[in-house]
Amino acid sequence: MPQDRDDAFAWIDAQRERRDRAGLVRRLSPRPADSPLLDLASNDYLGLARHPEVTAAAAAAAHRWGAGSTGSRLVTGSTELHTTLERELAEFCGFEAALVFSSGYAANLAAVSALSGRDALVVSDADNHASLIDGCRLSRAEIAVVPHADPDAVGKALDADEADEAHAGEARAGEARRRALVVSDAVFSVDGDAAPLAALAAVARPYGAALVVDEAHGLGVLGEGGRGAVHEAGLAGAPDVVVTATLSKSLGSQGGAVLGPARVIEHLVNSARTFIFDTGLNPAAVGAALASLRLLRREPERAARVRTVAMGLYGRLTAAGLAAVRPDASVVSVRAPSPEQAVRWAADCRAAGLMVGCFRPPSVPDGVSRLRLTARGDLTEEQVEAAVDVIVRTAPTA
Amino acid sequence: MPQDRDDAFAWIDAQRERRDRAGLVRRLSPRPADSPLLDLASNDYLGLARHPEVTAAAAAAAHRWGAGSTGSRLVTGSTELHTTLERELAEFCGFEAALVFSSGYAANLAAVSALSGRDALVVSDADNHASLIDGCRLSRAEIAVVPHADPDAVGKALDADEADEAHAGEARAGEARRRALVVSDAVFSVDGDAAPLAALAAVARPYGAALVVDEAHGLGVLGEGGRGAVHEAGLAGAPDVVVTATLSKSLGSQGGAVLGPARVIEHLVNSARTFIFDTGLNPAAVGAALASLRLLRREPERAARVRTVAMGLYGRLTAAGLAAVRPDASVVSVRAPSPEQAVRWAADCRAAGLMVGCFRPPSVPDGVSRLRLTARGDLTEEQVEAAVDVIVRTAPTA
Repeated sequence: MPQDRDDAFAWIDAQRERRDRAGLVRRLSPRPADSPLLDLASNDYLGLARHPEVTAAAAAAAHRWGAGSTGSRLVTGSTELHTTLERELAEFCGFEAALVFSSGYAANLAAVSALSGRDALVVSDADNHASLIDGCRLSRAEIAVVPHADPDAVGKALDADEADEAHAGEARAGEARRRALVVSDAVFSVDGDAAPLAALAAVARPYGAALVVDEAHGLGVLGEGGRGAVHEAGLAGAPDVVVTATLSKSLGSQGGAVLGPARVIEHLVNSARTFIFDTGLNPAAVGAALASLRLLRREPERAARVRTVAMGLYGRLTAAGLAAVRPDASVVSVRAPSPEQAVRWAADCRAAGLMVGCFRPPSVPDGVSRLRLTARGDLTEEQVEAAVDVIVRTAPTA
Repeated sequence: MPQDRDDAFAWIDAQRERRDRAGLVRRLSPRPADSPLLDLASNDYLGLARHPEVTAAAAAAAHRWGAGSTGSRLVTGSTELHTTLERELAEFCGFEAALVFSSGYAANLAAVSALSGRDALVVSDADNHASLIDGCRLSRAEIAVVPHADPDAVGKALDADEADEAHAGEARAGEARRRALVVSDAVFSVDGDAAPLAALAAVARPYGAALVVDEAHGLGVLGEGGRGAVHEAGLAGAPDVVVTATLSKSLGSQGGAVLGPARVIEHLVNSARTFIFDTGLNPAAVGAALASLRLLRREPERAARVRTVAMGLYGRLTAAGLAAVRPDASVVSVRAPSPEQAVRWAADCRAAGLMVGCFRPPSVPDGVSRLRLTARGDLTEEQVEAAVDVIVRTAPTA
């Protein structure tokens, strides 16, 4: 729609009407402090956002370090509390160094853009998270989007690029090649399936391509004591592997981090725009994430419990005839026939006291609407049973 | 440098060496909780990050609402506390509605990209903040970068675009045109100068172009009681004006916001990727920003005090013969002869107990290194005098 001279935002009304007709309008539903709903929608996988040790640490950090970090991490925004979290997080996940960002989104923009660049190739899984995709866009690199969870396709993309280059005389085949990066979520947010990380690393290495893995939904859930999918795949600390993580899911706080070799972290300090030009993470969030991390280290069984709950949920839903996807981590995805029916299903669950996620276009890569259930580790057997009852009872009839 | 097959990050060492030779390596210097240094470097313009009411509000919010918001604002990440802050912030600044993001960076990415798009033109000031530039890059719009603070150049860019379109037959001249957005900081971070907002709005309007203004350094400092530069220019609540703001500077917390007409805010809820795919701002940060806002409303003289301190600082520095830029808000910029001398100057200040910002390439748009001083409203006359003494005493001799 062309611009209306007398109304700069007339085009917004037109878009809104289209969205309305498609049943895709989103509205915020702010929650009270003490919601009576059973939560199977949040990403608080370990149930730590409300853990008294974690909230107390947030409060103590605000009192001791201030409500904000007051500046860029390069100016006044780095506190010793940030350094402590970075050291313990790197150590826990098995990496040399870590760098904390104000969000996982910012960490992904940083890792992808600062580790590629205009002359690089980025090979990106078709179902990668929006923040990884935006990182690709900001990088100005050449982007090869490959089919979901397909190491062979990654290998072909790297191979085709190398052949092109050799042909163009930019590099001699078999010697050196342009910078390349393979980028994947560890666990995909929408369907909860895990990436074939070991295979991706094996495919990337012969080309000298680095691997960037987003552990947003892996940290705290997969690997020994929740050390993540990269740790589980034996890739932690590898010289060509970089991990991004969020502090806002299993760690119940806010923020993001990049973990990797010390030289990579130092490079980000010097070149990542979302690090240099952003205010440092607020102390309360840093303190809370650190408390959660220590809690997880002390109680490693929390990670295994999440996976048990997820498999239990999946087993019961499929037994009841619903189209659930076998979960590799904490997210259980159940398909709905249409966006409208997904919305109605979620609303019916809510009316019955259960909060579930409802994913529909444009938030789903394949256009398929679904309920997204998160198996929190602190759910009891009774709660899981009650949740399944509601979901099955309110399911749309095909 | 081409990729080294045996070392995926060998190129990082090469970049590091170049940076080292140019004297541009950055290192983090984490601060302790109780730094003895006098702070003229942070963006805590009103000195509220450590105000007991503000830190207490952060702590109370963490206890009451949890350490994290637990999900996207569209799923579980919206609390009633977010809504309260959004309502009071919009009201204070004179806009219909507001939307809180996890950072000012995220708010800028959202506003620029969701309000333009592939078929739009964005006219962007050459000195705009990195987050606005990244918003332009993500938008996929055509970007016209215009000289700094130059409304005529903005007019010419809009005019040239219209002529092109009419020529191409895409729109009839004088009737409708493609979507256009004029984007500017309200106060530029590096030199502390204000944008000619009224002139920008006057130039944009005849073309039906909307104006997006980043109040990062204007909110809490400029306008009646700190309502910002847009309010001061008589543009608050205008149907074609959108404001972005940070909660991490004058409000002493973390986060960002977009303010504007209700339909614009609703559009962002439905389309802004850094809103939809990011975890909501953590409750402690929301609570702290709300407490700061209420404090500023109650004590409006805080804003005027910042401007007085800045002008006093500027007057004393220029009287001593230093090349300071006349401040329009709270930032006083002092030029240094070279990056190396800027770094040494800042280090000498630090050794004398004074913390100042040191901006050098690539963080400065014009390649000129400078000290960046922030005039906090809670500095006493004695502190300002002591700071000036140190800065003058340690100044490089030309």
